[in-house]
Amino acid sequence: MDVKTLHQQFKTLNNKTIEVKGWVRNNRAQKAFGFIDLNDGTSFQGIQVVYEEGVVEAFKATQKIRVGSSVEITGTLIETPDMKQPFEVKATSVNLIGDASEDYPIQPKRHSREFLRQNAHLRPRTNLFTAVFRVRSILTHAIHSYFQERNFIHLASPIITGVDAEGAGEFFRLTGFDLNKIPKNDQGNIDFKQDFFGKATYLTVTGQLEAEVFAQAFSKAYTFGPTFRAEKSNTPIHASEFWMVEPELAFTDLKGNMDSAEEMVKYIIQYVLDRTPEEMAFFDKFVQKGLLKKLHEVVNKPFKQVTHKEAIDILIHANVRFENQPIQGGDLATEHEKYLVKHFDGPVFVTDWPKNIKAFYMRLNDDNETVAAMDLLVPQAGELIGGSQREERLEMLQSRMKEMGIPEADLWWYLDLRKYGTTPHSGYGLGFDRMLMYLTGVENIRDVIPFPRTPKHCDF
Amino acid sequence: MDVKTLHQQFKTLNNKTIEVKGWVRNNRAQKAFGFIDLNDGTSFQGIQVVYEEGVVEAFKATQKIRVGSSVEITGTLIETPDMKQPFEVKATSVNLIGDASEDYPIQPKRHSREFLRQNAHLRPRTNLFTAVFRVRSILTHAIHSYFQERNFIHLASPIITGVDAEGAGEFFRLTGFDLNKIPKNDQGNIDFKQDFFGKATYLTVTGQLEAEVFAQAFSKAYTFGPTFRAEKSNTPIHASEFWMVEPELAFTDLKGNMDSAEEMVKYIIQYVLDRTPEEMAFFDKFVQKGLLKKLHEVVNKPFKQVTHKEAIDILIHANVRFENQPIQGGDLATEHEKYLVKHFDGPVFVTDWPKNIKAFYMRLNDDNETVAAMDLLVPQAGELIGGSQREERLEMLQSRMKEMGIPEADLWWYLDLRKYGTTPHSGYGLGFDRMLMYLTGVENIRDVIPFPRTPKHCDF
Repeated sequence: MDVKTLHQQFKTLNNKTIEVKGWVRNNRAQKAFGFIDLNDGTSFQGIQVVYEEGVVEAFKATQKIRVGSSVEITGTLIETPDMKQPFEVKATSVNLIGDASEDYPIQPKRHSREFLRQNAHLRPRTNLFTAVFRVRSILTHAIHSYFQERNFIHLASPIITGVDAEGAGEFFRLTGFDLNKIPKNDQGNIDFKQDFFGKATYLTVTGQLEAEVFAQAFSKAYTFGPTFRAEKSNTPIHASEFWMVEPELAFTDLKGNMDSAEEMVKYIIQYVLDRTPEEMAFFDKFVQKGLLKKLHEVVNKPFKQVTHKEAIDILIHANVRFENQPIQGGDLATEHEKYLVKHFDGPVFVTDWPKNIKAFYMRLNDDNETVAAMDLLVPQAGELIGGSQREERLEMLQSRMKEMGIPEADLWWYLDLRKYGTTPHSGYGLGFDRMLMYLTGVENIRDVIPFPRTPKHCDF
Repeated sequence: MDVKTLHQQFKTLNNKTIEVKGWVRNNRAQKAFGFIDLNDGTSFQGIQVVYEEGVVEAFKATQKIRVGSSVEITGTLIETPDMKQPFEVKATSVNLIGDASEDYPIQPKRHSREFLRQNAHLRPRTNLFTAVFRVRSILTHAIHSYFQERNFIHLASPIITGVDAEGAGEFFRLTGFDLNKIPKNDQGNIDFKQDFFGKATYLTVTGQLEAEVFAQAFSKAYTFGPTFRAEKSNTPIHASEFWMVEPELAFTDLKGNMDSAEEMVKYIIQYVLDRTPEEMAFFDKFVQKGLLKKLHEVVNKPFKQVTHKEAIDILIHANVRFENQPIQGGDLATEHEKYLVKHFDGPVFVTDWPKNIKAFYMRLNDDNETVAAMDLLVPQAGELIGGSQREERLEMLQSRMKEMGIPEADLWWYLDLRKYGTTPHSGYGLGFDRMLMYLTGVENIRDVIPFPRTPKHCDF
């Protein structure tokens, strides 16, 4: 029987004999009795096992079982309505399955986050990371469930790509070449024709363009998979490998796009709140005070909307001395985002951004200056979602690509989508790991990814 | 309203005015009327739109609308109980949204699979690929649902890795170096310390080892993500980028492992059968005759078991001339797998394989010659799943690694799992794309992956 089942069924199991396996989180041996905190990871809350001399077999051996060991316990479940925990198990036998040597790093005390990162293979056994990674798993399913229930088609957009989709950014290069013997062609350049794929290849930075292909066939599509940036940013919010959710909707304008994003964010938060009350209460208490209040507000309030121009006006007239002066046509700094979220008292979409600071595929507005883009700003996290209506008009797209120096040759197939049955369509991207930071209150992306990859760090 | 909703609600919509958007799959213009086959991709079956001179606005323009165009149609839904389709839409207006130029490649006729691969950006608009990719999406959700309902924790195992986990195989190398300027150290070797991650890095070939970390914390864990092989195999079943499902179960032996695999396979097949009856009927009729019968048998029959030794005995005594002579201690060839599946009249687990042809992490049996491994063989696909009990004993694992020349330095954390609370544990791997081939009857892996990557092919 697993620990989760014991918690669910302790009332019917009262006074019954049960067997349970798990790991010893703590073992407090007294003279004639002792307590083992046991968990098998199926539940946030473990169980308390009491062992007494004369009742449990091999009392002395049980006293010596070290933290981190795996054990099999047989005993009687006893309801304990007057105590902190609803029941305990009175052991009749405690069998050691796998010892933990004395140098086990995860002792029942406070460890620094950095120490736990260095022990990423053991940190899922701590309360914090048990909670983070369970919520991560359930959030994954929340996302799939949201889109599948609405008949979106999931596609695994390719990781290996020959396309620089954003027209910018730093890419990881991928090769089948022996780096000691890179072949050159007659011009003395690297001969990528001889490489595994017959061309230069990279790790993808987005699955959006491929998702558009699917939207133009299925009406609604989404990607959910890993993306990569070779940025040498050592910040709490940058990782070299992270997961993105990228939905695309045909026959949908910017308004429909925002409606979808708002509904999705509310759905996935509620989904997690419903399924992990213990973990969320733990985060609220120990990681970020006020977390639950913040999340409930996001779920319950309609998101607001403001154009980029209006937002800059608000910032200019704000009675605040910003480090970065807000200017029309300019980007929003983090301090600006924070001010706006406060100003609107909750999540707000900033729409219609200056074309010069946005990507080539965003739809040009009639003013010829702005594009039909939207960023969703939320309290404490800043930008959570970025999206836009896509440029569906072939000539406009071509002229934007020319302006921004993006070669048509790589994207012939993307242009074809505008040649054959184009539709007004929209999409957005949600950084999955940042969403998880927002949900848990955990402030470093290294602590929400099981085995994070950052500059100079690729362990495990 | 989308096409799926029309199909679901046509009875209540009879004689009502409806609006629908989609793409023109065919337009058969007669003298005074015409038919448009319309689909928006939300449903396998499209709808028939009738337009008549004098009823529809702009009759002549409607006649000229080309295949592949996107349109918005207003009209009256009419039940047609005597015809092939249950209803049709009598159009009052047909508005062109996006034209398709005359060279639209996907015309209503038979196209070769190779031609469609070259047009991977348009092939989701064909019947075959609409069906394949919808089933792919639903199979994705089936897998998550199976594991999530059973409290397995999903982890996104890392794509970028410094570890050669299988101790063999061909890896894609990943680098932040400019390939024209690769730095060397004093010994004249490539100085990977200067590379982005400070070491040589590759694309992962498996997430199993990281899944074991999670199983040793949560009891049950699974990965589901992309993996890579730089094999120059141009076969119908090899791709360079493919998705794997890799569950790991603590406190579980080989028998429990097989039980889980069998239950999972049956669950995901039934899940897809229940949700895509039209698509599955299409595959059964046009792609692989007998497909549904095969799948129903897999769902309903208990899987059989045979040891590798017994399997070889069966092959040796079979009244068949094999091209590859079966020998004790040797691997199974495809022809052997086919024979065994026929012999057992259905899926069969082959267990307890010679240690010399299996990976270092598989648990050594007491005979010191075989390991507690299992392959699941199924009709027509051969090996669908491979798994094993993992070697949980530290010394045994170290000695196997030494035997096979796998350095401990890379895998210190994997060895730690045996040092601190080790448990008997097991896991298996399912090739997602091959499972999809098996489910659909599609015989080339290039036709079940949206944008396949194979040697010399990295388009889109």
